[in-house]
Amino acid sequence: PQPFHLDERAAQESWAQGLVASGWHTASLTMRLLVESGPPIAGGLVGIGGELTWPQPVRPGDELRVLVDVVEVTPSRSRPTHGRLKMRAETLNQRGEAVQIATMVLLVPRNPGLSDRAAVEAS
Amino acid sequence: PQPFHLDERAAQESWAQGLVASGWHTASLTMRLLVESGPPIAGGLVGIGGELTWPQPVRPGDELRVLVDVVEVTPSRSRPTHGRLKMRAETLNQRGEAVQIATMVLLVPRNPGLSDRAAVEAS
Repeated sequence: PQPFHLDERAAQESWAQGLVASGWHTASLTMRLLVESGPPIAGGLVGIGGELTWPQPVRPGDELRVLVDVVEVTPSRSRPTHGRLKMRAETLNQRGEAVQIATMVLLVPRNPGLSDRAAVEAS
Repeated sequence: PQPFHLDERAAQESWAQGLVASGWHTASLTMRLLVESGPPIAGGLVGIGGELTWPQPVRPGDELRVLVDVVEVTPSRSRPTHGRLKMRAETLNQRGEAVQIATMVLLVPRNPGLSDRAAVEAS
C-alpha cells in the first residue's frame, strides 16, 4: 500500500486530497463481485487480458456495484473446444459514477451442441 | 477465489490442469514490487488505466520479478503541474517467461524546473 491508501494525513497532502483505494483493490473487489454474482460461465472466469481505467477515485465508505455487458463471443481458432468472450465491467459507486471500467477477454468453453456458424452468429 | 486457485483436485480437472494464481493476484504482486523497488516517481504510483495480458499461468512455487520500461512521458494539457507516464511492466517467472505484461498510464507530477519543450523532448 502507498501512503495515500492508509495514512490520512499523507493522503490529505497527496494528489488524492484524502484517502483513496488502490485501483488494484477496486479490480479485486470487482472480480469478487463478478465471481459471486456475475455471468455464470462454465469453468469460471479465466482472464486472458484486457484494458482497465480508473476514471474516479474510490473513497472510504463508498459502495460499489458492477454492471457487466458481454460485448463479443468468438470461437478460438487454435482450440475448437473453446472461445473468447469479451466483457465490459463497469464498477460504479453509490452516486452512479464509474470508478473502474474494465474490458476483459476471457477464455470460455464452447457449448458442444453449438455449431461454428451458430457461434459466429451469436457473437 | 475460484476453485482452480485453491482446490488442488478441482484445479487438476479445470482448464488450468493444476493450481494457478489469479491474474489479479499477479497484478497485485507486480504492483507491490513496483512500489517497493520500481521507478522512484514523486508522489507514488498513481494509475489512470492501462492494458494487461496474462500470457502464461503462475503456478505454486514460481518466483516472479518485474522489468519496467518507461515508454512515454507526456505533459498534461489540463493540469500544467502534471504529466502522464506510460510504462511497460513485464512480470517474469524463474524461467524468464512473461506471466503478465502490463502497459500502465500513471499520473505524475512534473519537475517545476523543466520547460514544456524539455518535457516533450524527454518523452
